[in-house]
Amino acid sequence: MTMSKPYVVGIDIGGTNTVFGIVDARGTIIASGSIKTNKFNEVEDYVNELHTELFRLLEQNNATDKIMGIGVGAPNGNYFNGTIEFAPNLPWRGVIPLAQMLTDRFGIPVSLTNDANAAAIGEMTYGAARGLKDFIMITLGTGVGSGIVVNGQLVYGHDGFAGELGHVIVRPNNGRLCGCGRTGCLEAYTSATGVARTAREFLEVRNDPSSLRQIPIQDITSKDVYDAAITGDKLALEIFDYTGKILGEAFANFIAFSSPKAIILFGGLAKAGDLILKPIKEAMDRNTLNIYKGKVKIMFSELKESDAAVLGASALGWEAK
Amino acid sequence: MTMSKPYVVGIDIGGTNTVFGIVDARGTIIASGSIKTNKFNEVEDYVNELHTELFRLLEQNNATDKIMGIGVGAPNGNYFNGTIEFAPNLPWRGVIPLAQMLTDRFGIPVSLTNDANAAAIGEMTYGAARGLKDFIMITLGTGVGSGIVVNGQLVYGHDGFAGELGHVIVRPNNGRLCGCGRTGCLEAYTSATGVARTAREFLEVRNDPSSLRQIPIQDITSKDVYDAAITGDKLALEIFDYTGKILGEAFANFIAFSSPKAIILFGGLAKAGDLILKPIKEAMDRNTLNIYKGKVKIMFSELKESDAAVLGASALGWEAK
Repeated sequence: MTMSKPYVVGIDIGGTNTVFGIVDARGTIIASGSIKTNKFNEVEDYVNELHTELFRLLEQNNATDKIMGIGVGAPNGNYFNGTIEFAPNLPWRGVIPLAQMLTDRFGIPVSLTNDANAAAIGEMTYGAARGLKDFIMITLGTGVGSGIVVNGQLVYGHDGFAGELGHVIVRPNNGRLCGCGRTGCLEAYTSATGVARTAREFLEVRNDPSSLRQIPIQDITSKDVYDAAITGDKLALEIFDYTGKILGEAFANFIAFSSPKAIILFGGLAKAGDLILKPIKEAMDRNTLNIYKGKVKIMFSELKESDAAVLGASALGWEAK
Repeated sequence: MTMSKPYVVGIDIGGTNTVFGIVDARGTIIASGSIKTNKFNEVEDYVNELHTELFRLLEQNNATDKIMGIGVGAPNGNYFNGTIEFAPNLPWRGVIPLAQMLTDRFGIPVSLTNDANAAAIGEMTYGAARGLKDFIMITLGTGVGSGIVVNGQLVYGHDGFAGELGHVIVRPNNGRLCGCGRTGCLEAYTSATGVARTAREFLEVRNDPSSLRQIPIQDITSKDVYDAAITGDKLALEIFDYTGKILGEAFANFIAFSSPKAIILFGGLAKAGDLILKPIKEAMDRNTLNIYKGKVKIMFSELKESDAAVLGASALGWEAK
């Protein structure tokens, strides 16, 4: 990175909002803005608005000629093709050549990947994974995503879609139905919606008291479970134990694949801290093959959640070509 | 590889025999030899004998000054350290700095890795994986091993021990006891001994006729199951279906990790051909996430089994430093 181009732009595309920011080499967000993603049925209109707003931000910050590259994190983003492919939560159907569309508008190199990969790159560039060459990033949000780094490089696989660890099947028999149409996926148990579902299952099957019973059962969220757990609610604590156990078992298998130095957790559920960390570690230790035992750290992301998505995407901008 | 050093040496260390060969750049084994591994309680004596015999072979073939490097495949071999660490099936305890010991004796660079990784490198250099940048090698023998290639590079992980896919836990509940001390590992079901165990379980629990009942139950091997299956024995065929299903389910999860272009099978069980391939493919297709469906080939190794171990190890010799 030369001093004449000291900044990158990060764009995080979510189903509801698109957030973008100008970022320097230390990971400081100089300025940021956002537009509504779901206001635009046509991707061309979306790109027009994004161009207008981002260009305004660049001008305001005297940065129009200072951008090394633009990085984009998007659901179902494909790094090899710079496309968003069949993203169920975005308004645009089919395959969207977004990186090319943005390059055409800005005249700046654009690199695009999926949101979990962007998070991993962000963590490697600015966060908890600085200096790590082998780690796995697990994003625990509405879904469960992952970005895998091996020997200092993101694992993209032959088609750019590697690293869907939320859709590893962890319960081969009688598993829960997952949003992907299969059963028993990690995501069906350990996403925010998976935790809420565990709560409903526990409450329906069992009789022990819990402050969660004051909430209409269909309205219970993972946040409610957390709130109950920190007051010491036994059933809520057991929900975290159950969730952590499934994560820890899955992590033990991931370790046998790439033998990472660390597994880094990010997203809503990661905020539960020791409530989720303790059962994860216990299950991981119990299920990890001897040669790996005690070698793998479980860490939380060091990036502020509100900034992490933009920072992650922006990190990709440094290597855009 | 310069023409002045047109050969490499491959050494495959097994629990019983050590086989070595001089190999050219096309993967032709110019000459080979072997010594007994388990005859030597002291690794120093073993290295002396290996040096004597290999040096003799080099002299006979006028190749003493023509070796680019020596590659070694060994159980529990660590690529980073050039060591064999706590190998349960070898006579030597603890950590053996074998690469250094051989370099000292031969004055030639030596590179060492585990046997399954060596097989993957062999397949990439001379076999079915030529030109592939993302694939997984699965060795189905007495145990189940794996070598994972991502973006053209072997995955070693932070400690050199990545890729123990035989010890991914595929049955988290009530799984079979594995040689590693845990339960439910892929190896416990799909190794040669795992298949024999399935046969015993099926024969004990069920009453349907099978030619396998003519063999004393404790003596049944995976070879017996194969022999019965090719004559159309229904129970034997079901044993292959059962084994293939577990492999296919596991492969679907591996695909979500590294999205390989191919999974390559090697070893005794791979010789069963369609008997094992068909149930693998069915279970894999049924369990693979949509975005990967139809993209991943299952292939058999293209290396002759008797040569593959030496070829695989030798391939490492080209990059030894």
